[in-house]
Amino acid sequence: MLILAGLGLYDEYDMPLKVLKFAKKVDKIYAEFYTSLLTGTTIEKIENILGKKIEVLDRKKVEYEGYKIVEEAKDKDIMFLTAGDPMVATTHVDLAIEAKKRGVKLIIINSSSIYSAVGITGLQLYKFGKTTSIVFPEENYFPKTPYYVIKENLERELHTLCLLDIKAEENRFMTANEGLKILLELENKIRENVISEDKKVVVLARAGSLEPKIVYGKIKDLINYDFGKPLHCIIIPGKLHFMEEEALKYLALSI
Amino acid sequence: MLILAGLGLYDEYDMPLKVLKFAKKVDKIYAEFYTSLLTGTTIEKIENILGKKIEVLDRKKVEYEGYKIVEEAKDKDIMFLTAGDPMVATTHVDLAIEAKKRGVKLIIINSSSIYSAVGITGLQLYKFGKTTSIVFPEENYFPKTPYYVIKENLERELHTLCLLDIKAEENRFMTANEGLKILLELENKIRENVISEDKKVVVLARAGSLEPKIVYGKIKDLINYDFGKPLHCIIIPGKLHFMEEEALKYLALSI
Repeated sequence: MLILAGLGLYDEYDMPLKVLKFAKKVDKIYAEFYTSLLTGTTIEKIENILGKKIEVLDRKKVEYEGYKIVEEAKDKDIMFLTAGDPMVATTHVDLAIEAKKRGVKLIIINSSSIYSAVGITGLQLYKFGKTTSIVFPEENYFPKTPYYVIKENLERELHTLCLLDIKAEENRFMTANEGLKILLELENKIRENVISEDKKVVVLARAGSLEPKIVYGKIKDLINYDFGKPLHCIIIPGKLHFMEEEALKYLALSI
Repeated sequence: MLILAGLGLYDEYDMPLKVLKFAKKVDKIYAEFYTSLLTGTTIEKIENILGKKIEVLDRKKVEYEGYKIVEEAKDKDIMFLTAGDPMVATTHVDLAIEAKKRGVKLIIINSSSIYSAVGITGLQLYKFGKTTSIVFPEENYFPKTPYYVIKENLERELHTLCLLDIKAEENRFMTANEGLKILLELENKIRENVISEDKKVVVLARAGSLEPKIVYGKIKDLINYDFGKPLHCIIIPGKLHFMEEEALKYLALSI
């Protein structure tokens, strides 16, 4: 049996009880923390809660040798832990498909995810359009996708959740400041009047923690603001309902 | 202190450990199950896990007298439980705002939600557009919103999550069958070629449970299919990536 289980958003207490319940019974626990990770805890603390050792796998082990985990799950109970909800990253979907292909029983344990946790800003979830990711630019690689996703959502008055790049192996997590700079650079390149320094956006830092930071303000005022430790994300609001205006007024720090 | 906490999707083991941890310490626990509910458990089972009684509040108590809960949280530690992620329903956002207005410390505990759990279908979350709700039609009330939301998402090749109405007080939960019938009726009324009997859709039943049902097929083949107990939701896929086609092939039952 293969159990794909989510640990939730922030620390070792965000996992559902179901994860703990299954962890007690399984033969082996793997985890990966390169697609996302829990910045409010350590692997040791998670192991302490689970009462079992975790073997953390790197990208290569999961993406090229994932079938080995699935093979192992043919006659053992294997748990595979991830941050957030387990079926958000393509990599985990691949493992699920592999399990089904090989006739391995599959259980998925859902958990909290940034996709719904953005609700803590007071913005209404059903008013979010397509989500986008802002990635670290590289030489000859500066994707324009986020710009066009934001543009299309704004045209329909919808909010855009911008997830920020994680390079866990290098201990690099894109800050909201870097993300905002990239959005302004994209405006400079493309010039279709989507992003401006005066555009008001929401930054959410450490969603899932007991003290997440929610800041609402113009890009020019947020771009040098210190949002503290990762993970961060940016929300480009579409048309705000007056209830959402009210929510931001009380739930976010306005600067 | 007011703690807005999510119980997750399906049963009493879906709550994060953090909910249990706080429940042990609080003075009082309220809950509401009219915006959504956990169909895989009972209030007694949740109480057993928490080791405390829960006072379940009806819509009136929450929407018109919610300020009383917030007032009580001024000098007591009050936990307010909901199904799913706590900040998805407007009602809970209102409570959060009320707490901030009255200077009451607010803690939000995120949990699994249908918004990310739809990932178990193998459809990619970032390819979902705006979400919509299909409600029980009433005399002179047959909202066309879902039709237009689906139309706009399809024009952008995006998937649409259709949440189905819950009238918990009357023990009525819209089935996917009823939802699909309503979509066909909307096509009959509006006639902009968005929905047809041959349109392939995904139905997801009992997300969050150990054995959720995921069925992929034409509306005409699904409309009389028995998806079992609630809750159900419908996903109208946009353009499928070949990886998503592959995922549906293995993770869903194709009929």
